[in-house]
Amino acid sequence: MTNPVQQAIENRISAHRYVDGPLLDDARILALVEQATRAPSAYNMQNWRFIAVRSQDAKARLQAVAYGQQKVLDAAVAFIVCGTLAAHRQLATALQPSVEAGTLSQRTADAWVAQAIQAHEGDVQLQRDEALRSASLAAMTLMLAAQGEQLGSCAMVGFDALALHQAFGLAPHEVPVLLVTVGYPTADQLPQKPRKPVHEVLEIL
Amino acid sequence: MTNPVQQAIENRISAHRYVDGPLLDDARILALVEQATRAPSAYNMQNWRFIAVRSQDAKARLQAVAYGQQKVLDAAVAFIVCGTLAAHRQLATALQPSVEAGTLSQRTADAWVAQAIQAHEGDVQLQRDEALRSASLAAMTLMLAAQGEQLGSCAMVGFDALALHQAFGLAPHEVPVLLVTVGYPTADQLPQKPRKPVHEVLEIL
Repeated sequence: MTNPVQQAIENRISAHRYVDGPLLDDARILALVEQATRAPSAYNMQNWRFIAVRSQDAKARLQAVAYGQQKVLDAAVAFIVCGTLAAHRQLATALQPSVEAGTLSQRTADAWVAQAIQAHEGDVQLQRDEALRSASLAAMTLMLAAQGEQLGSCAMVGFDALALHQAFGLAPHEVPVLLVTVGYPTADQLPQKPRKPVHEVLEIL
Repeated sequence: MTNPVQQAIENRISAHRYVDGPLLDDARILALVEQATRAPSAYNMQNWRFIAVRSQDAKARLQAVAYGQQKVLDAAVAFIVCGTLAAHRQLATALQPSVEAGTLSQRTADAWVAQAIQAHEGDVQLQRDEALRSASLAAMTLMLAAQGEQLGSCAMVGFDALALHQAFGLAPHEVPVLLVTVGYPTADQLPQKPRKPVHEVLEIL
């Protein structure tokens, strides 16, 4: 028997065409991003930011830096999922709610902050890895959250990162990691693409 | 009303302690990884590999390169999720099943391969980004798949990548991106850590 999460994972496709017209209201966008932020991140850094591109004007701007891809315009909303560099510098703030909730002692929080600063400060590659990692974990959660809401989605790496950075005024420490379109797919979608046989990518020790 | 996927996303915690003893058999490990490989990847590259560390001996080796963390030993299985560099070189092979299934024309497959080679060959940072991104998307799917199977999981970046590389004989083009422990959590887990308020990480345009 297939459980509902497995069903969502197996039924998710990369939706390349969307019914043009219906948008998502603020409440639904918030609900999706709220779920995305449930993804784990190193030290609970939450080193991510989401830009929900919904207006025609903003979509046109995004399409222009995404090689003209039509689905950016047709989707109900297109998310720019950013990872954050130098996240260790704001870790103390990110952990404060955990300390207040009593799930993390101040002493452990302080130790994590010291450890993160030691590891990340001066290691530009690690900072970038961490931005890519956290934003991707959140983006995958976002896509499955959309699937759970009976919406379609598509992850896209086809964009000009530098141009996007300028067009949307990203901060210097923000890295656009993925675009995720979300909306109502048309009926004529291709099935999920076949994958390599599992034994080719799995070793059990 | 909360849908089952949302429930899984909201109920997932980082399980730091596991009931010592029960393992996962090959079939269950295969089923989890099969779900993980349903994650999307650029051009459907599937630039990932999973090492399921289950035996006592292999777990001890992993613990030694993961700063002695006990949960590596106690979990039913600990996955090393690797991303693959230079994935464009094996893209033609990865796409062959899609061509055979008729969901991708040979012409489009050839165009993708040419495009990927042009973009990735010689761009070491893009290759690493892609490895981080794909492996993280797959790792998140793996954790939610585990949740769907009523198992606990924990993502870990606390490991010595170089030492792990040697201890497990990874290929030069393989990057260990995340460890994911999976198993039966003890009853004394902390709740999911609080997150920043959504409005701090979301902008709607």
